[in-house]
Amino acid sequence: MREISDGELKEASLCQLKELCEQLREEIFRTVSRRGGHLASNLGVVELTVGLHKVFDFPRDKIVFDVGHQCYAHKLLSGRAEQFSTLRTRGGISGFPKRRESEYDCYETGHAGTAVSAALGIAKARDLKGEGFEVVALVGDGSFNNGLIYEALNSLKILKTRVLIVLNDNGMSISPTVGGTHEILNEMKDGAAPATDIALFERYGLRYMGIYNGNDLQELLPALEQAKDVLRTQSVLLHVTTRKGQGYAFCEQEPERTHGVSPNGTGTEYSAALGEELKEMAKADRRIVAVSAAMTDSLGLRPFFEAFPERAFDVGICEEHACVLCAALAEEGMRPYYAIYSTFLQRAFDEVIHDVCGQNLPVTFCIDRAGVTGADGETHQGVFDLSYLTPIPNLTIAVPKNIAELRAMLRMSADFGGPLAIRYPREGTEGACSGIEIGRFEILHSTTSDIIIYACGERCLSLAERIRTAAQQKGADFTLVNARFVKPVDTKMILSRPETHVITLEDNVLTGGLGDAIARVLRGSGKCLRAFGYRDTFLPHGSAAELAGEFGLNFDEILSYILDCHACG
Amino acid sequence: MREISDGELKEASLCQLKELCEQLREEIFRTVSRRGGHLASNLGVVELTVGLHKVFDFPRDKIVFDVGHQCYAHKLLSGRAEQFSTLRTRGGISGFPKRRESEYDCYETGHAGTAVSAALGIAKARDLKGEGFEVVALVGDGSFNNGLIYEALNSLKILKTRVLIVLNDNGMSISPTVGGTHEILNEMKDGAAPATDIALFERYGLRYMGIYNGNDLQELLPALEQAKDVLRTQSVLLHVTTRKGQGYAFCEQEPERTHGVSPNGTGTEYSAALGEELKEMAKADRRIVAVSAAMTDSLGLRPFFEAFPERAFDVGICEEHACVLCAALAEEGMRPYYAIYSTFLQRAFDEVIHDVCGQNLPVTFCIDRAGVTGADGETHQGVFDLSYLTPIPNLTIAVPKNIAELRAMLRMSADFGGPLAIRYPREGTEGACSGIEIGRFEILHSTTSDIIIYACGERCLSLAERIRTAAQQKGADFTLVNARFVKPVDTKMILSRPETHVITLEDNVLTGGLGDAIARVLRGSGKCLRAFGYRDTFLPHGSAAELAGEFGLNFDEILSYILDCHACG
Repeated sequence: MREISDGELKEASLCQLKELCEQLREEIFRTVSRRGGHLASNLGVVELTVGLHKVFDFPRDKIVFDVGHQCYAHKLLSGRAEQFSTLRTRGGISGFPKRRESEYDCYETGHAGTAVSAALGIAKARDLKGEGFEVVALVGDGSFNNGLIYEALNSLKILKTRVLIVLNDNGMSISPTVGGTHEILNEMKDGAAPATDIALFERYGLRYMGIYNGNDLQELLPALEQAKDVLRTQSVLLHVTTRKGQGYAFCEQEPERTHGVSPNGTGTEYSAALGEELKEMAKADRRIVAVSAAMTDSLGLRPFFEAFPERAFDVGICEEHACVLCAALAEEGMRPYYAIYSTFLQRAFDEVIHDVCGQNLPVTFCIDRAGVTGADGETHQGVFDLSYLTPIPNLTIAVPKNIAELRAMLRMSADFGGPLAIRYPREGTEGACSGIEIGRFEILHSTTSDIIIYACGERCLSLAERIRTAAQQKGADFTLVNARFVKPVDTKMILSRPETHVITLEDNVLTGGLGDAIARVLRGSGKCLRAFGYRDTFLPHGSAAELAGEFGLNFDEILSYILDCHACG
Repeated sequence: MREISDGELKEASLCQLKELCEQLREEIFRTVSRRGGHLASNLGVVELTVGLHKVFDFPRDKIVFDVGHQCYAHKLLSGRAEQFSTLRTRGGISGFPKRRESEYDCYETGHAGTAVSAALGIAKARDLKGEGFEVVALVGDGSFNNGLIYEALNSLKILKTRVLIVLNDNGMSISPTVGGTHEILNEMKDGAAPATDIALFERYGLRYMGIYNGNDLQELLPALEQAKDVLRTQSVLLHVTTRKGQGYAFCEQEPERTHGVSPNGTGTEYSAALGEELKEMAKADRRIVAVSAAMTDSLGLRPFFEAFPERAFDVGICEEHACVLCAALAEEGMRPYYAIYSTFLQRAFDEVIHDVCGQNLPVTFCIDRAGVTGADGETHQGVFDLSYLTPIPNLTIAVPKNIAELRAMLRMSADFGGPLAIRYPREGTEGACSGIEIGRFEILHSTTSDIIIYACGERCLSLAERIRTAAQQKGADFTLVNARFVKPVDTKMILSRPETHVITLEDNVLTGGLGDAIARVLRGSGKCLRAFGYRDTFLPHGSAAELAGEFGLNFDEILSYILDCHACG
């Protein structure tokens, strides 16, 4: 669509604004249909975004989008309409707020619950600098389950500054919002118990304003004007309801399935195997429980949740609490499976150390979307987990070579006595799997070549297989090993192999992962190790294959290194 | 003191219980005076602990101590009175709950805010197993600032189980409790606005009971009995007030200074230099702000907070929020200094990645109590930070060799344009310092020996100096380098040095720290690297020197390796 200037938007009539909303919605739908992305969440906030741009003076005023998966309309209204069709492609517009893209994006997000803290920091800096702009945090009700929000609310009276928090209440995280806070918000929406619940917010120093229909500009615009007015003297919580997926019936009806849309799913999903296996295992083993932090469907846990509702817990966007809960369930003899995306497990890092591994408890972390994930960009790549998990004592880290091996690892896990992390990507192939033993690698191709490759995970093993074919055509070959445990690595095999050229491949940053683990074993052996993995930088958005090739797992580069090794004997 | 059996306690009269409280208090005071430990927090909960042991049936019933620095009376009442004099010594009684010590300690803590989540997990497992015991979480008001508590409260209605939360309200974290939640609790104590605030808790599914004097057994015992009664059908929040340091006037008057007591402070504190330098820098640089999460005094920030109250923020036990706040302040051009203990920075791991380094913002992390800390044990050792920080893109990691170098690094930091972590121990020496350049090491002793040691931080450099004296007596020597940047390491120096025997020393676990960083540079050089640091295990309590020697930084072992290198040329 064409660019809309700030001036044009400010002068538009209500009628014209409504028309603009339809254009934005169409553009979002068209682009997401083609490029994938966050659909329902972005459709829901179109009027709210138009209203905010009408009433506030961006980029002088600042807005922070919590999580950031609702910023498309904002991007379309801030000089990025013409490039918007490049959404989520390498070099194109990001699906999340990015400072490098526009001065209208002042603060980057991707994980939930940061927006109020960020808005407070921006507002406090404004006060200290003696400037006069306004600061808005747009936060979904799902994030009101997250502990960070309460830490920020607690700070309102400490920081003595002013922000506008717009609570975008659509009743959904990625999964439906759950728990006590959700019930409180629902009661407020029903008008059942407003006085005490308003007090809940006002005691923190917020003026509560609500409830307004966030999909109705006629109702919303005066509310925003009033909020801006109150904001002159104190912080405001403006409670608006929106409908996730607004304007597209199938999105409104299935907001969880249309929260994120993939342009073309190709492989089989690892997550489906997780749900199936856990369900099967739980039939015979009453100790098995499953925990998710607001992403039950995306993690494949739906079959388990339906079959064993009493042993299935979606605790909302509370990654830390979920982890402690698992530790305590394990302490009492249960066998908890905590399914979570690699990038979000970063939130529970301290609890993985302090609660699970510190007590050596049998919690199994099912780490989905590990490795480069692609189109969501910097905040969603799962490329740090091998690095931050390996230093933790008592933890075992497994990386299946395919979906069959994930199944086998899960079946093994129920009687494994300590903390176990299994990390796998979104998609792959079912394949087959031979017997697994903790800490033992598997030789996939044994050769007489002087080159050996240790690779973990399907992306790297599949890359190695393709490179092998190419190498063979040039007369070179290598022994290929499935390094299916990154902790402990197979010290015995590593030390006993005769090859002098050792190569490692991992779908993770190079610092602190498989390469370093094998290098520690080889120290003093005189052998030469070359590690391939991601460079020390944040990986932007693009296709996973593009990013892998560009940032460290490059077919030609690895092949060329192998041919060099081959040539030098 | 002598052991008190459960039966004896159950049958004791009120008079006898009061006398028992005096004995417990004396024993705690006597032992902490000798061994160091948490004094004021433990003195405050004596009556509360006796009351809980009288009313509940431990260890059949379960109790989780939030943070755990208030469990001494519990230990004295659960078969550990005779060994209690070994408190915090290697092999002796831990200052925190430990499962290996007693079945009365069901869940281990050390970091704030985990107790309600843990209690919920234990209670849910109980329900699933069809058992009938009760679960108590004892939580200080300081932890009610922490986001984890709200994530757990949100789960009450999801998990549909029953726990008793005892809110031990003494108005203190380690620093005085701050913020909106604290004001709400204060209003409840004043009786000013009980109805709406009680609703705050009751909406989560808790029955609120309060407020009782937790230092008065006559008032407390019937309240606990009533709470136990209500607990049969629903979760209860029992709000009691206690006086931190109760019974010892100087503790009551100075609860922050007597929260933790060190048996014999020896060296100069790094934290004092932090406060002094920041205060000096802030006089000329209005961008400088300081943030602490409830530990202002222990971090040495008091002088800064007093001189620049408008630029100093203690946000309570909210490590994550503090980190996001710093990122946002930096985004707006301020220069935030976030002072925090190494072990607690684990809580903000995701925010260090997602908010600070992902946006490449100039936040300086002043990481205190890095390395082995000693007597607090597993949950408080600062031995992971080099490992979990090194993989993060954009971050620079500095390790001063002495206090003068910390000062120099701080002065350098204000104009450093990106995220910077400076990690240092509690105590050391002032010393002197030469010019610092980012990513450049410093040669402290240059020799013609074929051995070179790269060591970071005062503990390791001082160990190396002592080893050098011993080695010289045996005719050996080595070049000694102050590896003052762990990221980036001094690649140029590492590659250009002629020595073939390379040794690294670090006050950190071996996995992912300095040794691995230098090994990555040396890969392919044919040089032999031997890294010394801590083994892959949780380091228990004991003196820092004992633990260092026992778990990987051993004088004799390192000396012996050097002599071997010397002998083989």
